[in-house]
Amino acid sequence: MEQRHIPPFPAWPDVASDLVATAAGRAPADLVLIGARVVLVQTREVIEGWQVALRHGRFAYVGPDASHCIGPDTEIEDIGGRYLIPGLCDGHMHIESGMLTPAEFARAVIPHGTTSMFTDPHEIANVFGLRGVRLMHDEALMQPVNIWTQMPSCAPSAPGLETTGYEIGPEDVADAMGWPGIIGLGEMMNFPGVVNGSQQMLAEIAETQKAGKTVGGHYASPDLGPAFHAYVAGGPADDHEGTCEDDAVARMRQGMRSMIRLGSAWFDIESQITAITERGLDPRNMILCTDDCHSGTLVHEGHMNRAVRHAIACGCEPLVALQMATINTATHFGLEREIGQIAPGRRADMIVTSDLSALPIERVYARGRKVAEGGVCLAECPHLDWPADTRGSVHLGKVLEAADFEIAAPASAAEVRVRVIGVVENQAPTEALEAVLPVMAGVIEGRDGVAQIALVERHRGTGQVVNAFVSGFGYGPGMAMASTVAHDSHHMIVVGTDRAMMARAANRLAEVGGGVTVWKDGAELALVELPIAGLMSDSPAAEVAAKAQAMVAAMEVCGCTLNNAYMQHSLLALVVIPSLRISDLGLVDVTRFALTDLIVEPHV
Amino acid sequence: MEQRHIPPFPAWPDVASDLVATAAGRAPADLVLIGARVVLVQTREVIEGWQVALRHGRFAYVGPDASHCIGPDTEIEDIGGRYLIPGLCDGHMHIESGMLTPAEFARAVIPHGTTSMFTDPHEIANVFGLRGVRLMHDEALMQPVNIWTQMPSCAPSAPGLETTGYEIGPEDVADAMGWPGIIGLGEMMNFPGVVNGSQQMLAEIAETQKAGKTVGGHYASPDLGPAFHAYVAGGPADDHEGTCEDDAVARMRQGMRSMIRLGSAWFDIESQITAITERGLDPRNMILCTDDCHSGTLVHEGHMNRAVRHAIACGCEPLVALQMATINTATHFGLEREIGQIAPGRRADMIVTSDLSALPIERVYARGRKVAEGGVCLAECPHLDWPADTRGSVHLGKVLEAADFEIAAPASAAEVRVRVIGVVENQAPTEALEAVLPVMAGVIEGRDGVAQIALVERHRGTGQVVNAFVSGFGYGPGMAMASTVAHDSHHMIVVGTDRAMMARAANRLAEVGGGVTVWKDGAELALVELPIAGLMSDSPAAEVAAKAQAMVAAMEVCGCTLNNAYMQHSLLALVVIPSLRISDLGLVDVTRFALTDLIVEPHV
Repeated sequence: MEQRHIPPFPAWPDVASDLVATAAGRAPADLVLIGARVVLVQTREVIEGWQVALRHGRFAYVGPDASHCIGPDTEIEDIGGRYLIPGLCDGHMHIESGMLTPAEFARAVIPHGTTSMFTDPHEIANVFGLRGVRLMHDEALMQPVNIWTQMPSCAPSAPGLETTGYEIGPEDVADAMGWPGIIGLGEMMNFPGVVNGSQQMLAEIAETQKAGKTVGGHYASPDLGPAFHAYVAGGPADDHEGTCEDDAVARMRQGMRSMIRLGSAWFDIESQITAITERGLDPRNMILCTDDCHSGTLVHEGHMNRAVRHAIACGCEPLVALQMATINTATHFGLEREIGQIAPGRRADMIVTSDLSALPIERVYARGRKVAEGGVCLAECPHLDWPADTRGSVHLGKVLEAADFEIAAPASAAEVRVRVIGVVENQAPTEALEAVLPVMAGVIEGRDGVAQIALVERHRGTGQVVNAFVSGFGYGPGMAMASTVAHDSHHMIVVGTDRAMMARAANRLAEVGGGVTVWKDGAELALVELPIAGLMSDSPAAEVAAKAQAMVAAMEVCGCTLNNAYMQHSLLALVVIPSLRISDLGLVDVTRFALTDLIVEPHV
Repeated sequence: MEQRHIPPFPAWPDVASDLVATAAGRAPADLVLIGARVVLVQTREVIEGWQVALRHGRFAYVGPDASHCIGPDTEIEDIGGRYLIPGLCDGHMHIESGMLTPAEFARAVIPHGTTSMFTDPHEIANVFGLRGVRLMHDEALMQPVNIWTQMPSCAPSAPGLETTGYEIGPEDVADAMGWPGIIGLGEMMNFPGVVNGSQQMLAEIAETQKAGKTVGGHYASPDLGPAFHAYVAGGPADDHEGTCEDDAVARMRQGMRSMIRLGSAWFDIESQITAITERGLDPRNMILCTDDCHSGTLVHEGHMNRAVRHAIACGCEPLVALQMATINTATHFGLEREIGQIAPGRRADMIVTSDLSALPIERVYARGRKVAEGGVCLAECPHLDWPADTRGSVHLGKVLEAADFEIAAPASAAEVRVRVIGVVENQAPTEALEAVLPVMAGVIEGRDGVAQIALVERHRGTGQVVNAFVSGFGYGPGMAMASTVAHDSHHMIVVGTDRAMMARAANRLAEVGGGVTVWKDGAELALVELPIAGLMSDSPAAEVAAKAQAMVAAMEVCGCTLNNAYMQHSLLALVVIPSLRISDLGLVDVTRFALTDLIVEPHV
């Protein structure tokens, strides 16, 4: 596996001698900030007029008077009475959700004040395995902000129910734990596996714990009984799948950290932060995160600043909300001596803001350098030289035709009762519906809002197409939409009301190396190219966001009236969330974690 | 260096499979506790009626109903509505201060509810170097409670001002970081060294940080200006030398943890806990510790339970005070997934108490086993087989005589002005006094409360005796007192008003292998044998405490009326605390960190 040497950011002990000299007044600081109201999340205080001296990208002095740290070449900046807060940390997220490479994701979020991210490259792990994780990890380490990688734990997410491009096992986890940017294990989504004592899942957790790193959790069930307790006993140290106050309380009581998220489509802060604001629990074990943010959210709304603002709007004290995005996160990952507070030795990541509630991000420093001002990223975010094959990951094995999407009816049936995946607006779970559909020339046809869905194998070029039915999008005739973002195994999901269009859409993605395309009446209405692994673009976020917006507009032209329906599309193969999903192995009843038949019974 | 293999307590991942099975109800717990009010320091809550199921010495299930964890062989205990709190952690302490081996120290504190200690074997490091640390470390790991070792950082404490038995350097620190029971670096006492950029001190810190472990601090100065900031920039992560609220606030603001102590002679909680109780700072970064406890305190007053009670008596909320002795400590040392809370996976260390303020320690569990009940230790605390030479560490090189303690006057002087170490009741710092003393037969004689003090070299048998004067003890004529506990280099300190008695006392300690002895008018009034390294006894605490009490009584017989004067005696060679001290190299002016002359000027 190719490995790059990325010069690490110097560790505290590497520069301690100089930090001491600067704090003592024997050597000048690189930069001194004066006139600030310094927010100390470590004591939950705001201190008027403190000064901050930086050296080698770290805080050397934080106190009432840094004049002894100033030399002839020291840069001095007056904050003008504004607040200086620590840079924001995103406790758990997936860069791929932005459809952006780590570099472009960083460039998009730096102006929002995000200076540390804990990211689980789960999606690329499904496409390129450990090598894909390494590529993400390497580009992450090249950035001017801190991007730590959580080693993906579950590829496939649901063993036996899907086939991924590559698989991840305990030996991969053990290997990755030695990489410089690995901070822990990514969300342990196979919670039934842990609860049932899966040796593979427990081995992955063990490798992480033995390396002294943090095991991420993912317990996506409302059951807080023995199964939940068994999951906790297995070792996951956090969980971001809670959706109500009881979920948050239960996790914190069990010694986990409750991560509460505001992503593009996750709104789990308001319902859980009451554990602090109303029940008065100690807030140290609550952490804010985004989990998944689309590029449009990054461009138009923000990132962790949006989450912190929202927490404050939900009644959380601003300093407590800031702790949830700084020191709490740092402590959770064993990094409290490295990031998350304005204090000597830590990386000098900080934000200038004039209001602790509205939280305008006026200026951002990362590792002592000004990286954004007034919403504009000033830092370079270097791109990895992605290997050529990572830009050609869509292998269909053949040119698809309309016939590949035909679903044969049982001999001589005129109508057939089939299972239908029911999309529900604004919800991740689907409904397991049934419909009686007509048969024409031996082929089952959709009607009354029932469209076709196909899972097209794209990792090994087997040419395999699994066909089924979906409803709820509201599509009219003559359309198709295809996406190689197809959680979690990331084959290709094609939804359509016209089999010829479905073939055109699928072939188009093979041609451009992946992405999302919408077709209607023989023409392509929109295309989002995601050439890297079929998941990410290395274009700027604004460009990707504009194309994604055009894609949503195209879906509307096709008749889809749902809010945020692209997410529904890309999650139709997510065989760990109920109720009915599709995979390369067939239709999956997620309530039973078992394959099920498309046809319920012949209907004569 | 001899190294024992001590079977480690099984790690969480080693038993995770069984913990999961028990929590899920598939396998029985070893022990289930019912009828408890469970104190969750992680959320700062008390939960009525929760049940706790243990397996392999760890918590498997903590929740409302553990009945599914009960099998035919599961032991069940009803707590009868009392509180279940986590076992107490001592954030920083020296076992040697109890004059006890780790085993006997553990046996003394287990009934007080102390189940985790972070101990710096700084004293034995001065006598036996790294090997001494390893012996303490090994006996620590043999105990039924958790004793983590902080690698001593400063032997000698004051390089150039004293000669220790052995020295500790960065390579020793690097070596020790690989030992199983090493949790970090012991208090970095050489704060002037850090402030001045000492490469050796920074290298020790660097070795610790690179190992991902915690650097203990010791900044014993009231100066909170640039020197303090420079010390913090060097890397120490905590400090227990604060004595006032401003000290505590300053440390926490700088991203350190403020350790506030109640030892036998340290009373630094009341003056610092107001940072929380009155100024309202976030309490997460405050930790309770004892630093130094004599065996008498352990036998008659308590240990960490005494510190917690005292914090509560000072106005701290009981649950916050408990956090300061449990989860805060665990988090500080990177052990929050291992100890410090009643939650799945953690070591099942806990206390049964019927009152959260008075905190009677009614029953103690460590690693799932009942280790104390009603003040009686029920656990075995195994003794190390200490190598023979560690029991014979007092090497005087010769039999001392009265003449060895004569201080020659300058030729023909009738009176001489000398420097005198002034002991101050209840204070560690001494005064730098002067006195005009008579000369008889060419020898300077004490008078008017000025006694003699001698530092007798005992590590290499050089036969060297450094003589000087001390006042403040109030001793009458004809006495001498000697101790091989002589911080920090632990030679032998002899104080007396009679040179023949001084010789007898010194020779006596050589005979018994070290300890403390008090002589008057030709007879030994009291003896505390400390045969191991001249610092510790492997007898039970109650026995040592009784002998120490007899020793204090003997000091009173000799005329000493000061409170706690043995501590003053044993600290007279502590050349890191102002003002005037004695070492094997001479009289030390600690305000200047320099040797000074005994004789100020000839007084004719």
